[in-house]
Amino acid sequence: MAVIECVPNVSEGRRLDVVSRCVDACRVPGVTVLDHSSDAAHNRSVLTLAGDAAGLKAAILGLYGAALPEIDLRSHSGEHPRMGAVDVVPFIPIEGVTMAECVTLAREVAAEVAQRFKVPVFLYEEAASTPARRNLEDIRRGEFEGLATKLAQPDWAPDFGPAAPHVSAGASVVGARMPLVAYNVNLATDRLDVAKKIAAAVRHSSGGFRYVKAMGIDLGDRRVVQVSMNLTNFEKTPIFRVFDTIVREAERYGVAVLESEIVGLVPASALFNVAAHYLRLEGFSTDQVLENKLRKA
Amino acid sequence: MAVIECVPNVSEGRRLDVVSRCVDACRVPGVTVLDHSSDAAHNRSVLTLAGDAAGLKAAILGLYGAALPEIDLRSHSGEHPRMGAVDVVPFIPIEGVTMAECVTLAREVAAEVAQRFKVPVFLYEEAASTPARRNLEDIRRGEFEGLATKLAQPDWAPDFGPAAPHVSAGASVVGARMPLVAYNVNLATDRLDVAKKIAAAVRHSSGGFRYVKAMGIDLGDRRVVQVSMNLTNFEKTPIFRVFDTIVREAERYGVAVLESEIVGLVPASALFNVAAHYLRLEGFSTDQVLENKLRKA
Repeated sequence: MAVIECVPNVSEGRRLDVVSRCVDACRVPGVTVLDHSSDAAHNRSVLTLAGDAAGLKAAILGLYGAALPEIDLRSHSGEHPRMGAVDVVPFIPIEGVTMAECVTLAREVAAEVAQRFKVPVFLYEEAASTPARRNLEDIRRGEFEGLATKLAQPDWAPDFGPAAPHVSAGASVVGARMPLVAYNVNLATDRLDVAKKIAAAVRHSSGGFRYVKAMGIDLGDRRVVQVSMNLTNFEKTPIFRVFDTIVREAERYGVAVLESEIVGLVPASALFNVAAHYLRLEGFSTDQVLENKLRKA
Repeated sequence: MAVIECVPNVSEGRRLDVVSRCVDACRVPGVTVLDHSSDAAHNRSVLTLAGDAAGLKAAILGLYGAALPEIDLRSHSGEHPRMGAVDVVPFIPIEGVTMAECVTLAREVAAEVAQRFKVPVFLYEEAASTPARRNLEDIRRGEFEGLATKLAQPDWAPDFGPAAPHVSAGASVVGARMPLVAYNVNLATDRLDVAKKIAAAVRHSSGGFRYVKAMGIDLGDRRVVQVSMNLTNFEKTPIFRVFDTIVREAERYGVAVLESEIVGLVPASALFNVAAHYLRLEGFSTDQVLENKLRKA
C-alpha cells in the first residue's frame, strides 16, 4: 500500500467558505485530508492530503474544478508570493513508493491540468525538466503580475499548457519533492548577529549544506535567538549533521545551544536516522521497529 | 485500537510438530502471530503475539489447551531454566493501552489458567503481588525439579491455583512488563576484562542502572568485545544514557566504542527518545510523526 503525501497551496486564505469547498473537493476515494490551514495575511491556504496515486490525481483535478471558478488572481493580494489560483502542488513519497513514481504522478497531473483547465504548468524540484526549474522561488519570481512577460520568454515556456497566463488562475507549479522538515535551533543568547551568522554558515545559498534553508530570527520576549530552518532532504542532509554543526559554530561565539524544535510533521525515518547516528547503530533496519512489524503482519 | 504484545515461552524446542500446534492454537480472532522461534539446545520456543485483551486471553487459554497434553516437564531437559510447560507469559503495552490494563489482563488470564488447568500461577514484574515476586529469576529459582518444595513454603504460595505443582506442567509465571530492548555495544578492543568491567558498571545487579541487565562477552573472530544487554524499561533507563555511560567508561580504559546494535524488535518511541535527547528537542510529541498522523486520520 503506497502512501503519497500531497500539499497543495491555494491562493485564498480569507473567504473560508471557498477554502472549505476546495477541501471538500479533495475528499475522494483513496485520499485522506490530514490537515488544512488558512492564513489571512498570506491570503493562502495549505492542504495536506495523503493517498495513492490514482486517488490524489482525482483529488487535485477536483481541487482545480472547485478553486478556479472562485479565485481570481486579478483581485488577489497577500504577503506570500504566488502566481496561480492553485499555486503549488508537490507530491511527496512517504511509504512504499519511490520518488520516481511521484515524478511520474506529477507529470501526469500537470498534463491533465493543462489540458482540462487551460492553465500553464511548470514542473519543479525532482520533477523539473531542467536544473533552472528545480527551485520554486526561481519559477515564481515576478508572480502573477509578471506572468505574461515571463511566459513570453523562450526560457520560460511552460512544461504543459499555453504560453500565456490563464486570465484569472495564472499558472501552477507542480512537482515532486522529499518531505520538508521545519527545524529550529534556539541559542542561549539575545545576540541576533550570532543567529544570522550561523544561519549563513549552514544554509545552501551562502555556502552551507545542500538541503538547508535558514535564517536567523529574534524570539524577542524570551531573550533567545533562533536559527530557523527548512530541511528539504533529510536523507542527504540529515538533522544530526545540521544540529552538530550549529553547536560547533555557536561555541566559536561562546554561545550555547539551548534546545531545538521540530515544527509540524516529521517522517519517522528522519528521527530513526538521528538515533542510529548518535548510537553508532550498525545493521539497523526500520523492519526492526515493532510498530512497522505490527502493521505489516 | 489497543495493541498489546504477548510473548509466551513454551518448554518445547525440539518436537516442531508440537510447537506448530501450540502456535496454531494462538491464531484466534483479534490476534496476530508476529513471530515464533524454537531453540533445540534450550528446548524452548518463544512466540510473539499481538492483539487486543480479549483476543490474547483466548489465545493464551488455547495455548495451554494445546501445550499441556503434549509437554511433560518430568522428561524435559534443556539449557534454559524453566518451571512450567507454558513457562512465562508476559503482556506488554504497545499502543493505545496502559500498563495498568496489561496488569489487569495478566491477573484475569492467571486466574483463568489456574482454575481451568489446575496449574499454580505466579504473577511477576508489574503484575507482581509483592516486591519479592517482581523478578522472574527469583520466582523460577529451583526450577521444575524444586517446585514442590518451593510451593510448600508459605512465602511461595502461588498467586492463583493449587500450592502444589501440576504433575506434568509444573507452574507458570504470568505478568506485565515494558518491552525489552536487546541492545549491545561493541568495543574496539579484544580485552574481555574491559567489557566485563563496563557491564558491571551499567547493570543493576552490581550498582548500575535500574533497568539494565548486562554481561561482557568476547565476539572472538572479530577481535572485538561486547557489552551485551537487556534494557527492561527504556522509558526509565533510556538507551542514550546507557550508551553515553559506556562511552565514558570505555574512555577510562583508553578504549573506543566501535558501534552498537539493536537485536530484534524495538518500539519506535525508544528511538524517538534517543533522537529527542541528542537534538535537545523541546515540545516534541509523537503526534508530530507523519506516519502516526496518517494512521490516526
